[in-house]
Amino acid sequence: MTAPGSQPARQGARSLDPHLRRYARRTAGMTASEIRALFAVASRPEVVSLAGGMPHLAALPLESLSAEVGQLIASDGLVALQYGSAQGVPELREQICEIMALEGISAHPDDVVVTVGSQMALDMVTRIFCDPGDVVLAEGPSYVGALGSFAAYQANVVHVTMDDAGLVPEALREAIVTAVERGQRPKFLYTIPNFHNPAGVTLAAERRAEILDICAEHEVLVIEDNPYGLLGFDGQTYPALRSMDADNVVYLGSFSKTFASGLRVGWALAPHAVREKLVLAAESATLCPPTFNQLVVSRYLSTHDWKGQIKTYREAYRERRDAMLGALEQHMPPGCTWTRPTGGFYVWLTAPEGVDTKAMLPRAITQRVAYASGTGFYADRLGSRQMRLSYCYPTPERIREGVRRLANVLEDELELYRTFGSVPGREVSGPQAPSPDTA
Amino acid sequence: MTAPGSQPARQGARSLDPHLRRYARRTAGMTASEIRALFAVASRPEVVSLAGGMPHLAALPLESLSAEVGQLIASDGLVALQYGSAQGVPELREQICEIMALEGISAHPDDVVVTVGSQMALDMVTRIFCDPGDVVLAEGPSYVGALGSFAAYQANVVHVTMDDAGLVPEALREAIVTAVERGQRPKFLYTIPNFHNPAGVTLAAERRAEILDICAEHEVLVIEDNPYGLLGFDGQTYPALRSMDADNVVYLGSFSKTFASGLRVGWALAPHAVREKLVLAAESATLCPPTFNQLVVSRYLSTHDWKGQIKTYREAYRERRDAMLGALEQHMPPGCTWTRPTGGFYVWLTAPEGVDTKAMLPRAITQRVAYASGTGFYADRLGSRQMRLSYCYPTPERIREGVRRLANVLEDELELYRTFGSVPGREVSGPQAPSPDTA
Repeated sequence: MTAPGSQPARQGARSLDPHLRRYARRTAGMTASEIRALFAVASRPEVVSLAGGMPHLAALPLESLSAEVGQLIASDGLVALQYGSAQGVPELREQICEIMALEGISAHPDDVVVTVGSQMALDMVTRIFCDPGDVVLAEGPSYVGALGSFAAYQANVVHVTMDDAGLVPEALREAIVTAVERGQRPKFLYTIPNFHNPAGVTLAAERRAEILDICAEHEVLVIEDNPYGLLGFDGQTYPALRSMDADNVVYLGSFSKTFASGLRVGWALAPHAVREKLVLAAESATLCPPTFNQLVVSRYLSTHDWKGQIKTYREAYRERRDAMLGALEQHMPPGCTWTRPTGGFYVWLTAPEGVDTKAMLPRAITQRVAYASGTGFYADRLGSRQMRLSYCYPTPERIREGVRRLANVLEDELELYRTFGSVPGREVSGPQAPSPDTA
Repeated sequence: MTAPGSQPARQGARSLDPHLRRYARRTAGMTASEIRALFAVASRPEVVSLAGGMPHLAALPLESLSAEVGQLIASDGLVALQYGSAQGVPELREQICEIMALEGISAHPDDVVVTVGSQMALDMVTRIFCDPGDVVLAEGPSYVGALGSFAAYQANVVHVTMDDAGLVPEALREAIVTAVERGQRPKFLYTIPNFHNPAGVTLAAERRAEILDICAEHEVLVIEDNPYGLLGFDGQTYPALRSMDADNVVYLGSFSKTFASGLRVGWALAPHAVREKLVLAAESATLCPPTFNQLVVSRYLSTHDWKGQIKTYREAYRERRDAMLGALEQHMPPGCTWTRPTGGFYVWLTAPEGVDTKAMLPRAITQRVAYASGTGFYADRLGSRQMRLSYCYPTPERIREGVRRLANVLEDELELYRTFGSVPGREVSGPQAPSPDTA
């Protein structure tokens, strides 16, 4: 200890962490995104970033929002700036039920828990269901933020195969049976049925009941994460899993993609008993979600044409998706394959043998294009030939330019591989932490 | 499972939770506040609530805030409504360092992590340091929200005695030695040195170095929670523990009491290596704190007289504290003792033998006064003769009336005890969940 009054210099440069012996075991699974290290470079304006998941907010009506939020503080400031309940503002929970009805869900506001983004809902679900070593089923690849939460609670992720029609029911059944044979009982299936992050595919309507049946039969809870469900490019929606099974599905929703991510307002809809546990867990995590933000969203929903806004978003993203798919078709070297999303933010690209997308990333950034390498979306070190390409944030022109640059990087990489039979600097790694800011 | 298309009725009335076998072990420690059950009654306008910790926001300059926040959206909406970094907005972290300097802390913005209220900081600290069964030291009584987080991570709380000068150094040393003799190594001491919640006492300046020495000597980290430090009624501040030891203290701060609780903006200041772990943990919990709220606080700090606002708050709370202490002096039956806070929100009252404050609470609410019973502030079922009385929210007149009613309830209770030798309906319980909304 230092004597009172004096303050030692910051110890950032010290290589030894004096707290090392104190950390919880869970911290072993907490690893920084390798993209983060490159962030300072990747965020330079000359780099086209296809890495992040930042929504295209330029479509928002800032002027009328500004007036609405100002008025909220002037007229209801004493409520908006005060603590609220851990479960969330009742009027917002009612509006959330109206939104979920668009995907066939009939729910009561009592069973909705508002959270700080749906990431917090995911974290709370994991908190109440997962002991260390418990098995969680998830698509392979899966959302990097979900893998981060599962790791924080020391759950073991078992990936289940997807194809272009989403999660494969037979693969799910097999994964459950295998786990049970090993003496494990999977706690839940975590799934993103619509416009998957990062895979860009959607669970076929005809598979949905089957997947619910498999989970019910084996007493595996379903966590349905649906941030993109209203962002189908032709305005099509799919029946939510929750609309088909109210007892065995916890549904997670978000305003981050349909309104504004910086407000961090999401929610969970859960069977009644689970909802009670979620509220208690949320209380210990943040006491309550920000009242202010909940009222901003609530006012926005009641005073703005929010469905029109979603349509505006959809059209912007469709244009960008088109730009990306067109450029991929035009520029990508033979042997590359990719998914063709009908909604959401992401294309999942598989490179030919010989490419390690993580090792290639620094070289791509040197060539002024960034992406998210595939290993971050697996808990088991797969994904080294894959990458996630986001079309949500850059303009169509920038997307085309980015894909062109990326294609050149891949060509060089493949050329090296053909010449030497390998590419220097290979390594694989575990899940990356989520990094929505690396746009 | 139900067939697709149909939806079963809500199962709120079912007594059997079908998910019961699925919950994580930690959920056993998650219990609802008994106050919550009484909330519908306790929040009726005719009830004077001395139970909650809601700040007195009426002092806020809503009109200029309204203009400022409206302008923020109009001019910087695309940033304010977008994802940000998990660590928080850089300009706010700089301003936070200026605020901490008021209590003698010299810190770098790089070591600050912005969180969703300091509750989240507390939860993240527990997440990175506590495995199930780890020992955490905390004052007895301690903040109910901290006990909630400790329970969520299955830490074992060992309470350390306080007196009117705060945590007793000898008791701390003894608690550590006893734990070590049992083969445990306490992970950290959680302490609220200034204007303690719920005890209303402040750690004497001359004890601070000693407590830091004891912790350093036994390699116990210190978590310094300081939401009330700037709310000393005479404007006095105390040197933060962090100002005396930058290596072994994680400091938690909050804007909930000095500005507005409904924005949920708090922070942690941590040694560099710990800070890195905190950011990773925070990322898995919420991705990032709301950008919007951080910019609202940042603008408020740079455009408003925030020190003047704190002075306004201080004066309001001093007046309320005076009202409460005066009324306690005037009305309380002999044998009651209570603390005399020089800042913050709370008085801690000890009733004479024969009173069980938890059992008495429903009767108090019938008599139109509410408080927080003492057992909620202990992890070990102590506190049955204690209660926390908050003077932060009701007006001085209401406080006086509430204390008068409470004194009558206590008189009746003691009369019963004197007549029958016991009071019916006794029970004790473990920690309650935090309930800031039960004002």
